[in-house]
Amino acid sequence: MPSAHPLEPGPDEMRDMAARASAVLVEHIASLPDQPASSFEGIDELVAALREPAPEGGSEFAELLAQIGEAAVRGFNTAGPGYLAYIPGGGLWSAAVADFLATAFNRYVGVWNAAPVFVQMEWQTIRWLADAFGYPAESSGILTSGGSMSNFSAVVAARRAMLGDDVTGGVVYVTEQTHVSALKSAVLAGIPRANVRALPGDDLLRMDPVGLRAAIVDDRARGLRPFLVVASAGTTNTGAVDPIAAVADVASAEGLWLHVDAAYGGFFQLTERGRAAFAGVERADSITLDPHKGMFLPYGTGSLLVRDGRRLREAHDVHEAEYLQDLAEHETTPNFSDLSPELSRDFRGLRVWLPLKLHGLAAFREALDEKLDLARVLYEGIREAPGIEIPWEPELSVVAFRMGAEDDTRALLDRINASRRIFLSSTMVGGRMFLRACVVSHRTHRDRIDEAVGIIRDSAAEVAGAAPRATGSPP
Amino acid sequence: MPSAHPLEPGPDEMRDMAARASAVLVEHIASLPDQPASSFEGIDELVAALREPAPEGGSEFAELLAQIGEAAVRGFNTAGPGYLAYIPGGGLWSAAVADFLATAFNRYVGVWNAAPVFVQMEWQTIRWLADAFGYPAESSGILTSGGSMSNFSAVVAARRAMLGDDVTGGVVYVTEQTHVSALKSAVLAGIPRANVRALPGDDLLRMDPVGLRAAIVDDRARGLRPFLVVASAGTTNTGAVDPIAAVADVASAEGLWLHVDAAYGGFFQLTERGRAAFAGVERADSITLDPHKGMFLPYGTGSLLVRDGRRLREAHDVHEAEYLQDLAEHETTPNFSDLSPELSRDFRGLRVWLPLKLHGLAAFREALDEKLDLARVLYEGIREAPGIEIPWEPELSVVAFRMGAEDDTRALLDRINASRRIFLSSTMVGGRMFLRACVVSHRTHRDRIDEAVGIIRDSAAEVAGAAPRATGSPP
Repeated sequence: MPSAHPLEPGPDEMRDMAARASAVLVEHIASLPDQPASSFEGIDELVAALREPAPEGGSEFAELLAQIGEAAVRGFNTAGPGYLAYIPGGGLWSAAVADFLATAFNRYVGVWNAAPVFVQMEWQTIRWLADAFGYPAESSGILTSGGSMSNFSAVVAARRAMLGDDVTGGVVYVTEQTHVSALKSAVLAGIPRANVRALPGDDLLRMDPVGLRAAIVDDRARGLRPFLVVASAGTTNTGAVDPIAAVADVASAEGLWLHVDAAYGGFFQLTERGRAAFAGVERADSITLDPHKGMFLPYGTGSLLVRDGRRLREAHDVHEAEYLQDLAEHETTPNFSDLSPELSRDFRGLRVWLPLKLHGLAAFREALDEKLDLARVLYEGIREAPGIEIPWEPELSVVAFRMGAEDDTRALLDRINASRRIFLSSTMVGGRMFLRACVVSHRTHRDRIDEAVGIIRDSAAEVAGAAPRATGSPP
Repeated sequence: MPSAHPLEPGPDEMRDMAARASAVLVEHIASLPDQPASSFEGIDELVAALREPAPEGGSEFAELLAQIGEAAVRGFNTAGPGYLAYIPGGGLWSAAVADFLATAFNRYVGVWNAAPVFVQMEWQTIRWLADAFGYPAESSGILTSGGSMSNFSAVVAARRAMLGDDVTGGVVYVTEQTHVSALKSAVLAGIPRANVRALPGDDLLRMDPVGLRAAIVDDRARGLRPFLVVASAGTTNTGAVDPIAAVADVASAEGLWLHVDAAYGGFFQLTERGRAAFAGVERADSITLDPHKGMFLPYGTGSLLVRDGRRLREAHDVHEAEYLQDLAEHETTPNFSDLSPELSRDFRGLRVWLPLKLHGLAAFREALDEKLDLARVLYEGIREAPGIEIPWEPELSVVAFRMGAEDDTRALLDRINASRRIFLSSTMVGGRMFLRACVVSHRTHRDRIDEAVGIIRDSAAEVAGAAPRATGSPP
């Protein structure tokens, strides 16, 4: 087909490219339940074929599409129903179509009058999230690329509000179970690593408010400036939910900013069980939650809510860009670039707005309730299996377990993942290795969890029954 | 059509959704040359229609698609050929298709073994950019959401390399013309605003290396710790290119990190004229360049290159996430999450890799040369027009101009934009208001620039010929 311009194909060619891509994707998604949960076959050759200088001339779209299709099915099958590792990332079709629209329309949403209706769509998604958490009308927020950037903006908002321009002596409190992005955010924001206190958790791996208060008092006595406590709802390791109301009491009494990292767990707030677990979350000064986790959206869709919206703006609005002088403020809709480290960035709002409008909130609530149920099913199915240890009931949708010896736990992970029907990851809790299964994908249903129970039980039995390893001698 | 699951339509419905979206987009893009350069008609109604609580039930896709189509054509027509304001953002169809693929496949690219072939595709784009700037094999880089995040990571890399953990007394040097994101990045990174020195430029608005050195010596004498100088290639206001080699001499002699913000101008490096203008850029410690500008990609695609790749990693790798313990390092391909503030984020690499492979580098080089030519055409066409003042020849593709009086300049902007065939923005330089036309879109060709020359000349003549405003009296 002839091109209208080297970089802009004609309408027929454009339609054809999109149709071919769509056909590949639909076939791929329909086959996800049958695909292996991980695959590393032939990756050396595929990777080597990519290593080349920048090509001076072009290539055929059909060939490149085939190459992308081969690339897509290598590694962890994060989009499939058996992916229970880390925090699964969803990938609703409606969100992919929304992103296609957003990218091809390519309007700029960093300031409201550049694309007032698109900006309002994105702002609407922020209002809906704020409503779900009982935040007031003066709350604000942004969509980010993910939980790490949300936590970063929370840290700078807290820093600016509580410390002003001078970060000297600022101290942040987390627990040993808090996601590493809290530490990373603090370091990026200029807080020395030594000033991030990782408090020990209680028996259920939750933040201890008494210990928190003691640490704050102690740091104050040393002349330091405690300014931020980060609670989790829930943790990545085990799904533990910190006692938010009690932590809020301490933060309030001591004058600290309370940030709740609900990147993984936040959307369970749509369910009755989630709201009970997160009691008091509306008192948090800021909340991270990732639509690319609990809303089943594609990777790259995080969010941050801030109860007093002015605080978010004061931390991010530097007000000195003369070349932006034509861009007035709107009465009710913000310029997102005043609330975020980003000026230009993708239009994330459409991939939140369209799925919510298309499917409705009820569909998400039901799916989230299903995930909580599935985690219970998994827990009940393996907790009395011979050789398996599970110290904690799942508070949300993570089940963490181990075998008595670390070598056995490692062997168990290898066997489970060798099934290629499910894929788990491991972590360390209190110096001991644990496997974890996190049920968040919208594609994971009862059939796969029943299968997972069987695989885990069988694998544990095999590991327990295997002859002890004889070092240096033949089997 | 029946759905397989409330959140996952069946294959026929999926294909249908994509086909409808594609049809709307192709028609939209084909009509871009005829669309107004800006439109605010009916926005109050469209915005008001969006204000609602989160919907409990779903809606029809066709209705939502129509609503999105209405929203898309309001505000500044950033995707059209007449958009010459700020920095135009492109929007290649091949990139939109790539993003559709990336989003629907939804693999995770933050660590290499989660998606080794996709990660290599993204890494390949970094290698190509590094090669274009003469960076060595040990250089590294990341794709970001845009120039602001690239500049931020450059600041933290410089801070970590030059100051260590303690930011106290750190000083950053920019010019009055440096993009505001440099200041913002420093503030976000914990450098007090008062420690960011905005040096006056020379007659051509470029950084003065002698003044830079004097400022560094002066700050050192006051006990401060100069650590970073940010040069521009070129500036957003006028496209001015700082004398990079001379600035590199000062940075090297004084032991400062040299960052070059080439967010707007960087891809002109692919042209002979660009390479001449950027002489010495390979000596920079880091370079920001935005594929969503000079590669005509959709908003949300920035990049940062760092000459000594270890520096980027040392600033971003906190190494404490036990739940990531299964993720080994690859010999030659990095874990992007160790090089960036982000852990989860979208797979940006595909929308850089696919367009480069599909169209080839030559197509981009030719298009960039065309933009440099078009800026000359615009400059020559209006520089002797009655009433127009143009103090600077365009170094790259920005033409900045004004009329004698600020009111006239403002009136000129209004008249030009009222044409709705082109859309310009204004800025302040040295306390005076300037209009600026920035030629970067892949859709802007000679016909539109000739039209722009006519519109600007006619508008200036009208403003110059208009009776002086009589305050309070009827015309």
